[in-house]
Amino acid sequence: MSIKSAEIICVGTELLMGQTLNTNSRFLARELASLGIPSYRQIVVGDNYDRLYEQIKESAGRSDLVILTGGLGPTTDDITMGVAADVAGKELVFDEESFNNITEYFRRLFRNMPKNNRKQAMLPEGATILKNNNGTAPGAMFEYSCPTTEDPDRVVHFVLLPGPPSEMSLMFTNEARPILEKMSDSKFITKFVHLFGIGESAAAERISDLIDAQTNPTIAPYASEGECMFRVTQRVDNGEEEKDLITPILDVMKERFGQCIYEIGDRPLKQVAYDLLLEKNKTVCFAESCTAGMVSSEFVDIPGASQVFMGSVVSYGNKVKTNLLGVSDDVLENLGAVSRECAQEMAEGARKLLGTDIAVSITGIAGPTGESAAKPVGLVYLAIADEKGTDVIEVHLSGNRSRVRHVAVLHAFNLIRMRLS
Amino acid sequence: MSIKSAEIICVGTELLMGQTLNTNSRFLARELASLGIPSYRQIVVGDNYDRLYEQIKESAGRSDLVILTGGLGPTTDDITMGVAADVAGKELVFDEESFNNITEYFRRLFRNMPKNNRKQAMLPEGATILKNNNGTAPGAMFEYSCPTTEDPDRVVHFVLLPGPPSEMSLMFTNEARPILEKMSDSKFITKFVHLFGIGESAAAERISDLIDAQTNPTIAPYASEGECMFRVTQRVDNGEEEKDLITPILDVMKERFGQCIYEIGDRPLKQVAYDLLLEKNKTVCFAESCTAGMVSSEFVDIPGASQVFMGSVVSYGNKVKTNLLGVSDDVLENLGAVSRECAQEMAEGARKLLGTDIAVSITGIAGPTGESAAKPVGLVYLAIADEKGTDVIEVHLSGNRSRVRHVAVLHAFNLIRMRLS
Repeated sequence: MSIKSAEIICVGTELLMGQTLNTNSRFLARELASLGIPSYRQIVVGDNYDRLYEQIKESAGRSDLVILTGGLGPTTDDITMGVAADVAGKELVFDEESFNNITEYFRRLFRNMPKNNRKQAMLPEGATILKNNNGTAPGAMFEYSCPTTEDPDRVVHFVLLPGPPSEMSLMFTNEARPILEKMSDSKFITKFVHLFGIGESAAAERISDLIDAQTNPTIAPYASEGECMFRVTQRVDNGEEEKDLITPILDVMKERFGQCIYEIGDRPLKQVAYDLLLEKNKTVCFAESCTAGMVSSEFVDIPGASQVFMGSVVSYGNKVKTNLLGVSDDVLENLGAVSRECAQEMAEGARKLLGTDIAVSITGIAGPTGESAAKPVGLVYLAIADEKGTDVIEVHLSGNRSRVRHVAVLHAFNLIRMRLS
Repeated sequence: MSIKSAEIICVGTELLMGQTLNTNSRFLARELASLGIPSYRQIVVGDNYDRLYEQIKESAGRSDLVILTGGLGPTTDDITMGVAADVAGKELVFDEESFNNITEYFRRLFRNMPKNNRKQAMLPEGATILKNNNGTAPGAMFEYSCPTTEDPDRVVHFVLLPGPPSEMSLMFTNEARPILEKMSDSKFITKFVHLFGIGESAAAERISDLIDAQTNPTIAPYASEGECMFRVTQRVDNGEEEKDLITPILDVMKERFGQCIYEIGDRPLKQVAYDLLLEKNKTVCFAESCTAGMVSSEFVDIPGASQVFMGSVVSYGNKVKTNLLGVSDDVLENLGAVSRECAQEMAEGARKLLGTDIAVSITGIAGPTGESAAKPVGLVYLAIADEKGTDVIEVHLSGNRSRVRHVAVLHAFNLIRMRLS
């Protein structure tokens, strides 16, 4: 049994009303791509019986796999499980194990289970139950016999996942994906080449010959905020011999991009910085002004961060810069908080105060308005201090407040990478 | 001519592959809601002639307005304008004004116009051209005569917008929206009721009588991480008298939820905390352990945060807790860093160190693994200290590392709200 096409249906009036950003479709689309399952449509539809029924029917008519998210909650609004079961002609039956998991979930939180949560244990007969380790709603995977004249034995697979992204992604990864992997017809080998310090179009131009000549592997550039990435994907059909077509492409890219490549793989920039700190046995702290804790907070996303990260000072007000970090009044008065000198004194002060091997500081103008013509929005100074001394860089970032802060965070991690590699 | 239903079609293989997050659908969905145009479906489809043609036909068969984004670029991949024109039975004709705008766009950037950009000036005959002030691709609005047996004069409106969000949103707002406003048949008045400290199902149960009885206004619950919200929406048809049906519903909700309601409107919890600090003329700082700067960083998302926020200490390592915040060795050794007493000493130490009116501390176990049976993942202590003394709360949060930290951040803002309101 193999799956040749898929579509994703996200159910929820909050998506239709534009209250929620649809991150589930992106997550699932990436997963399908990595499974080698072509996906041709993504659909959002509200919590409305008729429209949802019609949509599931329609999707099942053209795709072998239909993944649905949302509408598995305990309220009367939440109808996805029932509608999908109706399409497939299956009854909902009480699943004791799921019910026990839901009860246990509330017990762990020291809360009483509301009566209506019992509904979430009503699942299609014969379905494979997908456990939810992050919430109450179990998911389900089941088949819908949907014959066509060409294929009288045609079977469509339904995968139902909860709407909250943290529940959905965990359930898909742990429960649904392993089953789908066994059904896929061909596989894709993908390498991600991550760059920092070069824009998307400049990067694409530098390897335009490779991009123009692509067949297999395919090379797709894409930009996220402040970074740039190429996906290099080789398709291997089942039964076909597996030759390595990716390495020659990577070699050319390494030669052309040099130090701009910070990772060939999956590690984000902060993980690269973390791994270098761990490898070189160095501790780090941050002194943050415009980023205001974002560097530290993102760094601590890495489990085990405590091995290298001691703490930080968020010196938003100038008094904190002087009193805690020892930035001189002279610098603040004459050069300002957003200056090369202030960045340097912040890093050196933090390193001393927190007693780490390395300190990185960030001070800049995130907006919405600039200080002056000489200090516009996007001007950021970063410093890195260690036992050998202090380096300061000046960067000019484009975009709004949130983007300026985000890209400044990346620069902080990149400073660590450049210093240690 | 009035529009009773709409759907949104976003065109692009990068969306289907999960490389790009679909923010256009959310933007357009919000706009449609505010125009009082019900939108029943959002669809993503790739740059493929047959599938796109079929999709536009299908959408036009059931909705009066079909908004398409993406695929208006200069490359051969970009086919949306041609396909939509084919569905509507219109020829593409050269539009001189659009061509001049494209030429002018390149001139302003001191660049030569590549030859293939001429294609973007080929637009459906008789279409209303939508100007692009932010890029090269013009949009278009045109009609498709699509009779049904019930309505032999049925006309469907197509709106075609470029894919890049900054071009799309500007073009929609300036060019398309004014035209649609004149066509709309009714409007919606919506209030959002935001709650903290109660789960979605418990909240829905508490007003199940209102939810069961809903017709107009409608009441829809939904949960985001750690929070819960109800959307109360009243529909007012054109010509109908505008009575306030929402206030009576809100009054019942206020009575049932009491202090759990932190906002009726659009302000996130942190903004409510910020506004209270500003109003009461209080300054604040944070001492963060497991959240590691996330509280500070999110607080600073609010422009003008510097009026009340001085700075923070991220005390990730225990040495920072003792050396900077003055947490006693006794507490750390005997009760541990995740304890009621440590939270209290962190808040009091930070308040003293940073000289603010109020200090909030957070210490907890974000995971992935717990410390012991008595200190499982999700156990978090928060303290708030001011001149009247210090309060500590203990919370048990579910979910993974990222969710625990996120919800802990919300608790920190909620502590400020409860103390000041």
